[in-house]
Amino acid sequence: MTEAPARGAVLPATRLLLFGATGDLAQRMLLPSLFSLHAEGLVAPELKIIGTARSPLDDAGFRQVAADSLDKFLAPDARKPDSIASFLDRLSYVPLDASQPENFTALTGPVGADRDMPIAIYLSTAPSLFGSTIEGLRRAGLDGPNVRIGLEKPLGHDLASSAVINDAVAAAYPEQRTFRIDHYLGKETVQNLLALRFANRLFEPLWNAEGIEHVQITVSETVGLEGRVSYYDGVGALRDMLQNHMLQLLALVAMEPPATFGPAAVRDEKVKVLRSLRPIDRATAASHSVTGQYAEGAVAGQAVPGYIDELGRASDTETFVAVKAHVDNWRWHGVPFYLRTGKRLPNRHSEIYIQFREVPHSIFGGRGGVLQSNKLVIRLQPEESIRLLVMVKEPGLGREGITLREVPLDLSLTSAFAGFRRRIAYERLLLDLIEGDPTLFVRRDEVEAQWEWIDAIRDGWKAANVTPRPYAAGTWGPSAAIALTERDGVHWHD
Amino acid sequence: MTEAPARGAVLPATRLLLFGATGDLAQRMLLPSLFSLHAEGLVAPELKIIGTARSPLDDAGFRQVAADSLDKFLAPDARKPDSIASFLDRLSYVPLDASQPENFTALTGPVGADRDMPIAIYLSTAPSLFGSTIEGLRRAGLDGPNVRIGLEKPLGHDLASSAVINDAVAAAYPEQRTFRIDHYLGKETVQNLLALRFANRLFEPLWNAEGIEHVQITVSETVGLEGRVSYYDGVGALRDMLQNHMLQLLALVAMEPPATFGPAAVRDEKVKVLRSLRPIDRATAASHSVTGQYAEGAVAGQAVPGYIDELGRASDTETFVAVKAHVDNWRWHGVPFYLRTGKRLPNRHSEIYIQFREVPHSIFGGRGGVLQSNKLVIRLQPEESIRLLVMVKEPGLGREGITLREVPLDLSLTSAFAGFRRRIAYERLLLDLIEGDPTLFVRRDEVEAQWEWIDAIRDGWKAANVTPRPYAAGTWGPSAAIALTERDGVHWHD
Repeated sequence: MTEAPARGAVLPATRLLLFGATGDLAQRMLLPSLFSLHAEGLVAPELKIIGTARSPLDDAGFRQVAADSLDKFLAPDARKPDSIASFLDRLSYVPLDASQPENFTALTGPVGADRDMPIAIYLSTAPSLFGSTIEGLRRAGLDGPNVRIGLEKPLGHDLASSAVINDAVAAAYPEQRTFRIDHYLGKETVQNLLALRFANRLFEPLWNAEGIEHVQITVSETVGLEGRVSYYDGVGALRDMLQNHMLQLLALVAMEPPATFGPAAVRDEKVKVLRSLRPIDRATAASHSVTGQYAEGAVAGQAVPGYIDELGRASDTETFVAVKAHVDNWRWHGVPFYLRTGKRLPNRHSEIYIQFREVPHSIFGGRGGVLQSNKLVIRLQPEESIRLLVMVKEPGLGREGITLREVPLDLSLTSAFAGFRRRIAYERLLLDLIEGDPTLFVRRDEVEAQWEWIDAIRDGWKAANVTPRPYAAGTWGPSAAIALTERDGVHWHD
Repeated sequence: MTEAPARGAVLPATRLLLFGATGDLAQRMLLPSLFSLHAEGLVAPELKIIGTARSPLDDAGFRQVAADSLDKFLAPDARKPDSIASFLDRLSYVPLDASQPENFTALTGPVGADRDMPIAIYLSTAPSLFGSTIEGLRRAGLDGPNVRIGLEKPLGHDLASSAVINDAVAAAYPEQRTFRIDHYLGKETVQNLLALRFANRLFEPLWNAEGIEHVQITVSETVGLEGRVSYYDGVGALRDMLQNHMLQLLALVAMEPPATFGPAAVRDEKVKVLRSLRPIDRATAASHSVTGQYAEGAVAGQAVPGYIDELGRASDTETFVAVKAHVDNWRWHGVPFYLRTGKRLPNRHSEIYIQFREVPHSIFGGRGGVLQSNKLVIRLQPEESIRLLVMVKEPGLGREGITLREVPLDLSLTSAFAGFRRRIAYERLLLDLIEGDPTLFVRRDEVEAQWEWIDAIRDGWKAANVTPRPYAAGTWGPSAAIALTERDGVHWHD
């Protein structure tokens, strides 16, 4: 696999060039994240941030956009006027039509002409502009050995289209300087999953087919189509959520211990998992996956329309998908990984649920009550927490001699680390991009292994004529999704 | 091993005959415990409690003694006048000199002459009276197949003297109806240790030499000799604490999974551990044990005299003992069990501390900080709690990419089970005696295996001329006790 330098082997960027600087993501996430890094002194004083987009703004205009977005999206207690003023001082702006590569020389002045200067570029633009953007950056000389580039998803809609984008990027930037963002990897609890697995002796002996009965990964949303009409329809839940975020979570749960917490070792292990995913293909698509599309219903007591009504036309895009996956290697032989994601579900949460096997034999017989299997629940949203469910003796006497009860050992990250502010995932990822550490970014071979697996599922659906089944908004998807696990004697953890 | 019937196979006692009914233990522990069982409806309405002792009381006098002790030792909110009145109604009293077996027929009337009536007897008297008491009980016909007998420690001071007592008891009561009390086994957290180990898949794969680095068991007291002059001197810490409570804790930590949570299976496994203890003998006593005797010092800021001063004469009784034990079987090969107990130590606590091995390799290198081994800390006193120490990622960014920190996963039994009153260990044990379940009582073969191991240590001390080293009251024993673990690179968990 492509080797990538360890953290500290490269110099932190002194320029951050932000494409799509006036866009929604920039306003909601990127500018507030950059401000936090600034306010906490995590970025060097000399770092300049150059925004670019089509809007005909000058520096002052962009600073106003940034100031407004901080005002809107920062927590009130984070809005420190002094820090905001010094942050805005870092900003400048170059209006640019990214579809016109010949105009990119306009960047040279603001970015600086020093070829040795470490530069980080962040493309938060439509992938259709990637090709011309890369071309423009080359023309402007912004493809030197000290330039790294961060790419926002979606990177294509299948293996072939992602290869086109990746090839275009690769023409200017080698893999080790290409930072593909999956913002789930920036979440504290995702990194905590690695800490739990590899900084503790406790879990590893159980972390295999011998100890784990099954794994569930759920990413549920309550929202419907919202403003994403143009993007979402024709893409669907499988490609919007499962292909990237959820397969990354699966890879982190299932991977072998890497030799180091470095970019090459971690990603080598993840890609091995992704390549070990048993294909769900024409033969198994109907039995190992379920798709759905929400019909009208009620979420949180509020009547909501169905997908078709929201969209305003017929569509067979799935707004829900559940799959039963297997990782075909020694460690995970016979352990199902159930993944599901959807819109208009009863609540919004993202979690990894690991159910350990039952004790091989209950010494308590019927006496202590029914023994529950141990579970580890890693919740990413809405709040981040880690919960270990164990059986203990209930205090007291009772006629049975001993009464067992399942209780949670909670690691509320909020309360264990009370002094710490909860961060948004982009802070981590922007800092890593600026510092040049690609460990938490997705390597090309991972993306391609993900697409390959996803494309086979879509091919299977097409061949087997699988179309999404309707489910009432506010329910956990079509009943077939329940049946998918219940056939195995497994209940979804709602 | 002696088979014992499972719970429910015998009828609950309808008579409880309590020897030493006016004594200190009865007043502080037994009568309050019996009251609690009564108040919660855990004993049958027909259960009568007959107290006996030398004091020339009548029923009313004994009820007054009981009422006074409830007043003194029950928590204020537990003193419900109605319940106290109905509890006192259960009580009657027979004055009796237990050294006069011929007088025991006085019991026949109050206890009742029905040979089939299930009777529980509890001897809370000096062991020197056991012989005559058993003889008296036989003469009074109180040795039938429905009679079981509970014995308070100390049961002898070495293997030979314990055999004398056990033989005397065995002449009237077969092993399965002999209930030897070690009140540590009545503690919630001790039973919880069994629940943790055997009702959870989580710990067992690690619960061996592969996963555990060492075990510590500490029982520390702040008190000195107090009112125990006549008993304690000449007995010492090894026999007062380590021989019984601490070896029982060790056996519960180290035992193989029993097939059932029944008296035969649990005790078969415990005795196997006790018999697998590597002898500490003449060759190893000096290197594997440390004894101490407290000199004057300060506990909790209060100046206190030394043991000799309290005693008023010279003595080489140890008030502190630390040993390094090994369980010579497959599971525990090479895992040291460090045990220590003493008087006039800096604080009062009893705990089992299990240190797991380090992860075999840190993927974080120096980056995340030093990895701490996982630990499980089961605290029995002063409060009961279970704490699992794990490494997690500290929230935040920092330059190192990931910062790890040890955090506790706490199972505070007090807060997890807020509605439950904390019980004293005797409630559990008295109920089990009344109901005839010997699982949490010590079988003769266990006692004898304990004594055999302890006697060898004492023999070793004598042969090697080991006498207790002085330690200042309020410190953790003589410095040699620190050296005992530090030689192995292990720190006592204070």
